[in-house]
Amino acid sequence: MVSIREEDVKIPLDVPLAVRETYLQNYMEITKGTGRMMLFAGDQKVEHLNDDFFGEGIPADDNEPEHLFRIASKGKIGVFATQLGLIARYGMDYADVPYLVKMNSKSHLVKTKQMDPFSNEWYDIEQVAEFRKNSGLKILGIGYTIYLGSEFEADMLNQAAQLIYNAHKYGLITVLWIYPRGAAVMDEKDPHLIAGATGVGATLNSDFVKVNYPRKEGERSEEVFKEAVLAAGRTKVVCAGGSSDECESFLNKLHKQIHISGAHGNATGRNIHQKTLDEAVSMCNAIYAITIEDASVEEALNIYRNK
Amino acid sequence: MVSIREEDVKIPLDVPLAVRETYLQNYMEITKGTGRMMLFAGDQKVEHLNDDFFGEGIPADDNEPEHLFRIASKGKIGVFATQLGLIARYGMDYADVPYLVKMNSKSHLVKTKQMDPFSNEWYDIEQVAEFRKNSGLKILGIGYTIYLGSEFEADMLNQAAQLIYNAHKYGLITVLWIYPRGAAVMDEKDPHLIAGATGVGATLNSDFVKVNYPRKEGERSEEVFKEAVLAAGRTKVVCAGGSSDECESFLNKLHKQIHISGAHGNATGRNIHQKTLDEAVSMCNAIYAITIEDASVEEALNIYRNK
Amino acid sequence: MVSIREEDVKIPLDVPLAVRETYLQNYMEITKGTGRMMLFAGDQKVEHLNDDFFGEGIPADDNEPEHLFRIASKGKIGVFATQLGLIARYGMDYADVPYLVKMNSKSHLVKTKQMDPFSNEWYDIEQVAEFRKNSGLKILGIGYTIYLGSEFEADMLNQAAQLIYNAHKYGLITVLWIYPRGAAVMDEKDPHLIAGATGVGATLNSDFVKVNYPRKEGERSEEVFKEAVLAAGRTKVVCAGGSSDECESFLNKLHKQIHISGAHGNATGRNIHQKTLDEAVSMCNAIYAITIEDASVEEALNIYRNK
Amino acid sequence: MVSIREEDVKIPLDVPLAVRETYLQNYMEITKGTGRMMLFAGDQKVEHLNDDFFGEGIPADDNEPEHLFRIASKGKIGVFATQLGLIARYGMDYADVPYLVKMNSKSHLVKTKQMDPFSNEWYDIEQVAEFRKNSGLKILGIGYTIYLGSEFEADMLNQAAQLIYNAHKYGLITVLWIYPRGAAVMDEKDPHLIAGATGVGATLNSDFVKVNYPRKEGERSEEVFKEAVLAAGRTKVVCAGGSSDECESFLNKLHKQIHISGAHGNATGRNIHQKTLDEAVSMCNAIYAITIEDASVEEALNIYRNK
Amino acid sequence: MVSIREEDVKIPLDVPLAVRETYLQNYMEITKGTGRMMLFAGDQKVEHLNDDFFGEGIPADDNEPEHLFRIASKGKIGVFATQLGLIARYGMDYADVPYLVKMNSKSHLVKTKQMDPFSNEWYDIEQVAEFRKNSGLKILGIGYTIYLGSEFEADMLNQAAQLIYNAHKYGLITVLWIYPRGAAVMDEKDPHLIAGATGVGATLNSDFVKVNYPRKEGERSEEVFKEAVLAAGRTKVVCAGGSSDECESFLNKLHKQIHISGAHGNATGRNIHQKTLDEAVSMCNAIYAITIEDASVEEALNIYRNK
Repeated sequence: MVSIREEDVKIPLDVPLAVRETYLQNYMEITKGTGRMMLFAGDQKVEHLNDDFFGEGIPADDNEPEHLFRIASKGKIGVFATQLGLIARYGMDYADVPYLVKMNSKSHLVKTKQMDPFSNEWYDIEQVAEFRKNSGLKILGIGYTIYLGSEFEADMLNQAAQLIYNAHKYGLITVLWIYPRGAAVMDEKDPHLIAGATGVGATLNSDFVKVNYPRKEGERSEEVFKEAVLAAGRTKVVCAGGSSDECESFLNKLHKQIHISGAHGNATGRNIHQKTLDEAVSMCNAIYAITIEDASVEEALNIYRNK
Repeated sequence: MVSIREEDVKIPLDVPLAVRETYLQNYMEITKGTGRMMLFAGDQKVEHLNDDFFGEGIPADDNEPEHLFRIASKGKIGVFATQLGLIARYGMDYADVPYLVKMNSKSHLVKTKQMDPFSNEWYDIEQVAEFRKNSGLKILGIGYTIYLGSEFEADMLNQAAQLIYNAHKYGLITVLWIYPRGAAVMDEKDPHLIAGATGVGATLNSDFVKVNYPRKEGERSEEVFKEAVLAAGRTKVVCAGGSSDECESFLNKLHKQIHISGAHGNATGRNIHQKTLDEAVSMCNAIYAITIEDASVEEALNIYRNK
Repeated sequence: MVSIREEDVKIPLDVPLAVRETYLQNYMEITKGTGRMMLFAGDQKVEHLNDDFFGEGIPADDNEPEHLFRIASKGKIGVFATQLGLIARYGMDYADVPYLVKMNSKSHLVKTKQMDPFSNEWYDIEQVAEFRKNSGLKILGIGYTIYLGSEFEADMLNQAAQLIYNAHKYGLITVLWIYPRGAAVMDEKDPHLIAGATGVGATLNSDFVKVNYPRKEGERSEEVFKEAVLAAGRTKVVCAGGSSDECESFLNKLHKQIHISGAHGNATGRNIHQKTLDEAVSMCNAIYAITIEDASVEEALNIYRNK
Repeated sequence: MVSIREEDVKIPLDVPLAVRETYLQNYMEITKGTGRMMLFAGDQKVEHLNDDFFGEGIPADDNEPEHLFRIASKGKIGVFATQLGLIARYGMDYADVPYLVKMNSKSHLVKTKQMDPFSNEWYDIEQVAEFRKNSGLKILGIGYTIYLGSEFEADMLNQAAQLIYNAHKYGLITVLWIYPRGAAVMDEKDPHLIAGATGVGATLNSDFVKVNYPRKEGERSEEVFKEAVLAAGRTKVVCAGGSSDECESFLNKLHKQIHISGAHGNATGRNIHQKTLDEAVSMCNAIYAITIEDASVEEALNIYRNK
Repeated sequence: MVSIREEDVKIPLDVPLAVRETYLQNYMEITKGTGRMMLFAGDQKVEHLNDDFFGEGIPADDNEPEHLFRIASKGKIGVFATQLGLIARYGMDYADVPYLVKMNSKSHLVKTKQMDPFSNEWYDIEQVAEFRKNSGLKILGIGYTIYLGSEFEADMLNQAAQLIYNAHKYGLITVLWIYPRGAAVMDEKDPHLIAGATGVGATLNSDFVKVNYPRKEGERSEEVFKEAVLAAGRTKVVCAGGSSDECESFLNKLHKQIHISGAHGNATGRNIHQKTLDEAVSMCNAIYAITIEDASVEEALNIYRNK
């Protein structure tokens, strides 16, 4: 297991003195003391409606939101990201799970061809802080999605800046999902554009930024992804899990993202929850092994298979 | 009569400790201690203007708003949903009625073909709480309509999240009406899309979500509706009554929604109020019998017919 | 003269206990103790710019705003509705006039064909209350115009709901002008649509709602207007005076609106002020006679003619 | 020199008792005790960018903003209107100048053909009051431009109403510039439309309203302008100077505006500052002579020529 | 080295008495006591995404944001302008650098052809002041970009006016970047239009305004630029560095801007950071020599070459 020392964590300067300790504890907990984050993403009930939870090839379990909490509770994860509403409904039975509140969400019904995407803030940070206090839950951070290049980019940049500034005032860790999207965006996975996105995450002062894994013809993704990891500076980059994938290739990709590209973890949703509970838990543990315990792909595959 | 125990009610964690008791009482009262809700919907004076209240086949009584209050007062219901304005005008004479304030409304004049729908909030929760106190009325909850897939979805998701969060701070029960609608929506009653809608209701932390009854060629609605009931998790699903219907088939449909699909009640408007007072009261009682008293369709029909 | 008893006035429940007496006094004063309102409408300097005040057939007096105040002061009226600015300029010389502050206004320059209408709030209620206090004037109520079916309906419904809720907190009487208008509206004077409009006024909790007099081919307006009066419930309906009209037919129409349709008064502008001062005062008195003093058309005509 | 008595000034009723004296002093100072205002307009650096200050026929002096302050300081004026920023930069050296803060401004780059005009508020009145206090300058009033008939009219009417209401709370004098403009406006200088504009100024409670001088084929402007002066009631009308003009004809026009049309002064910019300092000061004095000192055109011309 | 005396600094009058000393210190520090500013611009990670930091001809160093801080720390500069987020991440290791917080930013993905530009505020001044206090860093000022002639000009003028007014309340120095841009703008570098832009900066009360260097066929830029410098009055004008340039011609251009046109410094980004650290530091020092130390182009070139 890799590990970092508390004194090596660069606490951003907008964290007030009085909450530096809280920030540090949250940071160490969300990264399990490694500086890398294993984020279990469970915000798709809005983003993709029920498409990710019900249908051919998806086990019946996945249609109930509690499936996500069962996985988050039994599997090894760094943090479980979902909307405040679900946390408020299931948190009393899953009090040990570390949570990250996804602050904005939109459905995928209106396509980019019709209108550029805008995902609006649902709560402010004061409400999250109040909820953390009222619920007594381990709320470690918040997340927000920006569609860079959308005609509504100006609104989302402003909301993101405000959320991060205010989240840090409460010692909360922040994760930005930044996806270039809109009429102006030709190639959403262009490595250079993805590097632009992680750089924006840095200027916005986010602790982590989650982007899509770049893809360029004739190039190896793990190589071209380096540009983005470096461009983010001290903001840590994690990759979106994307659409469901065969397990070995998924773990292999993740291992390269971390060990070749320099990514600091992963944000995985469908590759975990579109499985039965046991398989999902094993998948968590395999991903966790690579991300946090510095396992090889083979070791991780064994964890997954010996479930 | 079915019944639930207070200790089985999962109070959402955004309800502050000090108002958990209020929330619980409101929840038990609105569901008559059963966990199922019989909601009498009377917000159509804006939504459909006078189309639902005056015209061929509608008794003259229905043109006066007091008709709704007479029904709510004499019939058995869980809660009567309407705009604050009407409650403020008639509440002094109908103080025993349990009320739910519908927080947003729009007319049907502008069609989706012209512009995607947006239904704007009329009040904030602080005003509802103040009104509850000033009026001394039994205001148990609030309601809000979201048009999922509208180009204005972002505004409505934000307003809904805020209203529910704040309503829970006062111990109020929340009901979302979620209808997929807009240029991007091809089939508003597609079961999978309806399940997406109930899932959104869950992420928004609503206590109840009211959707249209799904319809799919070659499928039985009560079967395909199960997806939506499960996708909502701990948020309870009720069905819209829709356009006026022959009584037996209506009750039959309702019974199946509850006993086959797993719905937790109903939200019925026109099928009740587009009748003379006596018939409307009998209709309430019949619906109540199925929803709250666990009656069979036959028993409920007898209640309706022996008026 | 008709009259109502104070105990018969249904004070809406959003009026706080402490101001119920103020509301009641304002209500009795604005209706002269009859429950019917004679509203002298003088807000057209924005709505129609100078078209209603200067031109062929309009006496020169009418071009000066003071003409309106002279009429309001010398004629019998229930209340004089105009913008706060004019009240602030002339009120010191016309302190006995009962005023109603028109809260929103727009010019008629942009036609519906170019853009759907939106009339924006100019002040909030706190400012009106402060102005009432600072000026010492008899400000009895406030008014607001909604264009139902406009693409900006959502904004106006919200502003109206807020203004009425807050006006009642200060004991002020409220009047909504509701006109169906916009690209979506085919027939602005359709009786069924007008009934929809008065119903919306009721859901918004307005004390009075002013609509255009319905018109339908083959029907008598006073008959088809009944639908709208009933649909408004406890909200009282008054009719817009519309374009200038021959006096006898005007008074006749008004008498029928009250005695056949059940309207509770009138809101008249051009039919009053587009006359010399003496004639205008006589016209006020004639209208007042029918509205408040229960005069016949003949008696009212005599009042007008024996000026 | 004409003069008015303090007791003849109708202080608008939204001016609170405690600041009536301040309002009165400001009013007397801005009109030099005459009820007429000589406003030196220097807000064109935004409205027309550098077009009015640099180019053929404009003396080099005019390119520096200080030119405006030199004129305002050496010439006779009632008040100098410009943006707060310039006042903040030069006020320490021109502390004797009476100032009026222009509250909104826009450039002329976007033409009406592309988009209807909207000029947005830059500050609120609390900031102006704070600036008045911090700077110790003689800030007598504020100004605001409305483009009547623009698709953004609703925003500007609201901002104007708020600014005037709040300015009066601090005893500040208000000047509205009202120009009909936008796709809906066919003839910006139509006398009847201009009269509509001054009437709107009255309903908004402005102390002064500045409009363009009307023009109608076959009519004398000074005659048709009377409609606008009367329609404004107790709000005083002043005329825009418009594009640069030969001096005698300019003074002649001004004299007629005051003595035939009944205007209460002028608002002049380019006709003053597009001159060398000496000429500009003489021009101020000539205009002042007509406006404040009741001079004839001949007397004023002598003042201008004997510089 | 040129120098100014403290008593010659015209402190704008919106700076409250209590913070005049802070403003003066900031002004002297940001101009190194010369009245001229050497601004190192590092806000392009949003404005140009990763295009300015990675690619052919750009040293690998530049892809990491820390490169900017290393330069700012080792090179001679007046102030380093970048987003608050980067300052919060690196400031603890670069505490001696003088900072200017860039308050708004947008990406270049949406082109003007698709939509006129709008760059939205990310923070308010209260947050910057709080950050200055919490971080203990030398935050001397703030910056904001306006796209003059954009359809969103009204929003940006308002935000700029507010930011500057509030920044001065905390004694912060302000820099406006004003670029004419949008469908309405034909020639962004037209000298007369640029002069309009600097004039707008003056009316907005900015301490500095940064514009593009004008270009006109058949004219020498340093000559036609004079119009803009004068039009800005007491607001100091600096020039944008623009796209990367050969060193000698760059320094030559800068020298002329200062000594012929009358500019008060420069704002340079890519010409500095698109170099290895040593070269970048030398470039800073060369620019600094001309701007602050009054060096000749030859002396500055020697500084650059003798690195």
